[in-house]
Amino acid sequence: MLYIVGIGCGSAEGLTGEARDAIESSSLIVGYTVYNELLQPVFPGKKFYATGMKQEKERVIFALEQAVCGLDVSLVCSGDAGVYGMASLAFELAENYREVQIKVIAGVTAALSGAALLGSPLTNDFAVISLSDLLTPWDVIEKRVEGAASGDFAIALYNPMSHKRTENLRRACEIILKYRSAVTPCGIAANIGREGESCRILTLGELQNSVVDMFTTVFVGNSVTRVIDGKLVTPRGYRI
Amino acid sequence: MLYIVGIGCGSAEGLTGEARDAIESSSLIVGYTVYNELLQPVFPGKKFYATGMKQEKERVIFALEQAVCGLDVSLVCSGDAGVYGMASLAFELAENYREVQIKVIAGVTAALSGAALLGSPLTNDFAVISLSDLLTPWDVIEKRVEGAASGDFAIALYNPMSHKRTENLRRACEIILKYRSAVTPCGIAANIGREGESCRILTLGELQNSVVDMFTTVFVGNSVTRVIDGKLVTPRGYRI
Repeated sequence: MLYIVGIGCGSAEGLTGEARDAIESSSLIVGYTVYNELLQPVFPGKKFYATGMKQEKERVIFALEQAVCGLDVSLVCSGDAGVYGMASLAFELAENYREVQIKVIAGVTAALSGAALLGSPLTNDFAVISLSDLLTPWDVIEKRVEGAASGDFAIALYNPMSHKRTENLRRACEIILKYRSAVTPCGIAANIGREGESCRILTLGELQNSVVDMFTTVFVGNSVTRVIDGKLVTPRGYRI
Repeated sequence: MLYIVGIGCGSAEGLTGEARDAIESSSLIVGYTVYNELLQPVFPGKKFYATGMKQEKERVIFALEQAVCGLDVSLVCSGDAGVYGMASLAFELAENYREVQIKVIAGVTAALSGAALLGSPLTNDFAVISLSDLLTPWDVIEKRVEGAASGDFAIALYNPMSHKRTENLRRACEIILKYRSAVTPCGIAANIGREGESCRILTLGELQNSVVDMFTTVFVGNSVTRVIDGKLVTPRGYRI
């Protein structure tokens, strides 16, 4: 059996009971180095196997190879198992390992945990977009930012910036600014559920000129999002 | 203290450790009748207070009134605390209860748990839209469906149909069909994590003519979503 497990932010408290049960029933946990290190103190005595960044395919194949030999394996993903996670890659590669049964276990993705930290920016319809153009061409990303902005979605932006991608957040904000005011309330959540956790609220105009890192999730409010007592809040539509 | 707690699908296994801790440390749990009934066996001996459907405002005010008297209260929401949940309403109404400290605890929303059941349809950028026009005007919903469809987002549709809203799913599909082929793979997940859990895969053309109920979450694939061995999979973009 191969479990693809969304572990949330990586703390013990962020795991669902289902994720915990899957990992506990597995004889091997396969993941990215950083997340394995977060999980090791939560599951002492468990056997872990790690691969580095950009070695996702090797990681999934290793997990499938172990599962096809009869082991129960948990392939762990930060946040959710699906959202920018390993589940789809596992299904694609499993075409060569048809004996392996795969079960996906959902987890709390950063759009939800970051939103909780900031208040409630994603209460109504929302879009989730990664600004990393490693696996998705930039013109597709731009089209999505345009679609989300024109549809007045609250937006969660993953991978907003890295050492190599310094301009994508600015360009995304430029597109959104065609549809929304520069004072639209936005939020930044960093190191969610981990050491150094922080968040702050700022305007879309300020966000456009901000420098953030790759451990950051960015939130852009829709046309009715407002700041209430220091929290970023998108009303659901109830009459107060 | 008022915790706004996302409880996931309502089973013990769907709770995060953080959600469980918050509920256990609360002396009162406030929620919608159905979710309280799901939680009662998980937290025996706890005091519950329920209000019915469409009594969200009364529910939140009751929770705030109890919290302002010094009780630790958990206001529970199915799925996430933010996504179509009570967190924003709590922040809005808390303007009259400034002494109450509010902490939002994220949970696994149906977009994620339903996706896990079907495979991995939300692996890349996605949009979440509720088709209920009780709190959002239908023209805003149509604009969002249009934005999500034009941006080639995978889409999760909440509240796709009810006894009174029988045509919204059909109309949403019509809009999406302007941008996507009728054979676009889609999925339906019902009663996620509960008795009667089921899911099925169908085409966008078939979805347009489907009858579903209000305990259903609907998924529409993007231009590269495909069915692999009975699972609905949106590739992340890795070269296989």
